[in-house]
Amino acid sequence: MTRALDPERLARAYVSTVTQGPSRAVEQLIASRGVIDAAATMRTGDVPKAVWDRISARAHLDSAAQSLDMVAALDGRLVIPSDEEWPAWRFLGFDRQDGAPDKRDAGAPFALWVVGSASIAASSERAVAVVGTRAATSYGEHVTAEIAGDLAVDGWTVVSGGAYGIDGAAHRAALGVGGCTVAVLACGVDRAYPAGHERLLRRVSESGAVISEYPPGTHPARYRFLARNRVVAALSDGVVVVEAGWRSGARNTASWARSLGRPVMAVPGPVTSASSTGCHRMIREGEARLVTGARDIAAEVGVIGTGAGDDDAQDALFGRDLDRLPATPARVLDAFPASGARSVQELSVDSGVTVSAVRSALVVLEIEGHAGRDESGWFRIGGL
Amino acid sequence: MTRALDPERLARAYVSTVTQGPSRAVEQLIASRGVIDAAATMRTGDVPKAVWDRISARAHLDSAAQSLDMVAALDGRLVIPSDEEWPAWRFLGFDRQDGAPDKRDAGAPFALWVVGSASIAASSERAVAVVGTRAATSYGEHVTAEIAGDLAVDGWTVVSGGAYGIDGAAHRAALGVGGCTVAVLACGVDRAYPAGHERLLRRVSESGAVISEYPPGTHPARYRFLARNRVVAALSDGVVVVEAGWRSGARNTASWARSLGRPVMAVPGPVTSASSTGCHRMIREGEARLVTGARDIAAEVGVIGTGAGDDDAQDALFGRDLDRLPATPARVLDAFPASGARSVQELSVDSGVTVSAVRSALVVLEIEGHAGRDESGWFRIGGL
Repeated sequence: MTRALDPERLARAYVSTVTQGPSRAVEQLIASRGVIDAAATMRTGDVPKAVWDRISARAHLDSAAQSLDMVAALDGRLVIPSDEEWPAWRFLGFDRQDGAPDKRDAGAPFALWVVGSASIAASSERAVAVVGTRAATSYGEHVTAEIAGDLAVDGWTVVSGGAYGIDGAAHRAALGVGGCTVAVLACGVDRAYPAGHERLLRRVSESGAVISEYPPGTHPARYRFLARNRVVAALSDGVVVVEAGWRSGARNTASWARSLGRPVMAVPGPVTSASSTGCHRMIREGEARLVTGARDIAAEVGVIGTGAGDDDAQDALFGRDLDRLPATPARVLDAFPASGARSVQELSVDSGVTVSAVRSALVVLEIEGHAGRDESGWFRIGGL
Repeated sequence: MTRALDPERLARAYVSTVTQGPSRAVEQLIASRGVIDAAATMRTGDVPKAVWDRISARAHLDSAAQSLDMVAALDGRLVIPSDEEWPAWRFLGFDRQDGAPDKRDAGAPFALWVVGSASIAASSERAVAVVGTRAATSYGEHVTAEIAGDLAVDGWTVVSGGAYGIDGAAHRAALGVGGCTVAVLACGVDRAYPAGHERLLRRVSESGAVISEYPPGTHPARYRFLARNRVVAALSDGVVVVEAGWRSGARNTASWARSLGRPVMAVPGPVTSASSTGCHRMIREGEARLVTGARDIAAEVGVIGTGAGDDDAQDALFGRDLDRLPATPARVLDAFPASGARSVQELSVDSGVTVSAVRSALVVLEIEGHAGRDESGWFRIGGL
């Protein structure tokens, strides 16, 4: 396979394989040396102690080429930051991770192992995570089916974790209406986990994507579930928890979303149901906004029907003559006042572009010198 | 009956009968002339136009003595502000009614017609309103029974509106555990409304109280339900809505509680149930705090187990030597810092005394010259 020979891809595969999850130390090494050089020094052990402590057990096992072969055999691929389908803006939030200590070591994934027909960037352009307990009630599964089905019909990608219960119901509902759904796994994409979802995950990969930051062959483990939850949150415009017990992985996903500045939502249920206690607690503590259906959710995560999926329509509307900018950045630029700063949220409301698409557009506008940022927010550079 | 001959009581009965509900104009007339003189001028029509517009249709019908006879025949009474059982502090919130235009004309009741064994002041000392839709589901009635029963066992009076559905379930649950419950009616206390609750209301009056600001013989009417809701809110430390449709009288009660500064709470339910849509909306819009049971409710309305009902224990603990103050005001005074202002809520937390009891205590402390109020809150006068 041609792509496997690409030295950058090979280096990313190596880093992914030996690091096994996020690491700020490895991230810094790559930032200072480039990934190819970083991978070479990681192999030799000539790296800062923090990096070595993390990788020493696996540094000698150079299974990168083998992992790439394995994913290719599944008709899959390794997606890396230089690929067009890398959803760079989805991971910008990790740059500002200075809050919760439990999240400080968790940056963007080094690469994503993917089996699926969908482009990761395109499928996560307008995406909502629908997650919850494995111990779902029939009420929870029913409500998940309604919500995920309605979101998928409205063009939202439904992101979830592939687990039994709420996750499975969310994937199934999106598939059922011919929508796009993405499963983020805590093990290699070659593993069907849980085993009973082997067929469901195959269907997810056929119309959407099955994703992992862990190389093929990796077994699920508790700490991998926690790291996986951050990818679910990162790939989504918001996280909806449908049912969750008092202690639930779904609350961990919600916590990631919160620290990434994404809306967290929870669906209430009967107060007599143990499977809703986590949702009620999150709403009560102000950790999540109460939502009752897809309409509430769309109102939280963006402006209904004007997501970045409408690029063609936006092109027709705005043309590409304004400084040769793509339509969405041009539209966001148009939402700036002549002077004064705006928040991402305000720009989203004023432009009718989703928050995640505004973030993406601001990267373009900043690079092109049309916009800048200071402590009061984003401001326009140059006249109207 | 001796009390009926009391000229102040007779005057209040007249005002109540001819005004039929709250009126700021009548309130001002009473404040400037005293109630006996005010009633005399109302009879002759020699009153400001705003008063006359309100009472002209009924001013000549002096049925006050007859109303007092009717309530006496029911073993009831008219409770007026000079009575010991008048819960003055409950109505203080109306003095600061400057917000919502729909509430500006609504002050304290001029008097309360009562049938019941309980003192109004004592029974509303620690009280929670539990209200909701007439179209309750079995889920709603079950949850109401749990909540109202638990509150009553913990010594809270359960206040409600005597209606079918949630209201009835709340009264019944309090009675079922031998607790105290108060029904506030939108008609005369001689009327059983709804008719199917005749027996329930009699049981409520036997162990608690059935109350109305309308004289005996008054029929229920839509505007009387709205005014009645304000009395439900005023007599309670907080309002819990168990089930409510999209448009519901319970939301009106909640709105009164909010403008009186009392906590508003709502119980969630299945998002598939139309009877919970009002609750979900209130929680979603930030109008109500989500609660799942009596424990959550107690946490919202006051400190558990240290309500003003514990006066004896507090007396033993604090003595009455501090400036000869009653125990609760002394305890609240003790919660003040040497300098700086505190809110009622902060004083409640610091003293372990419920918010309503703090309000009551502050009236005493202000009269006795121990505390004052400015725009930043309440402050102590004199040293520690």
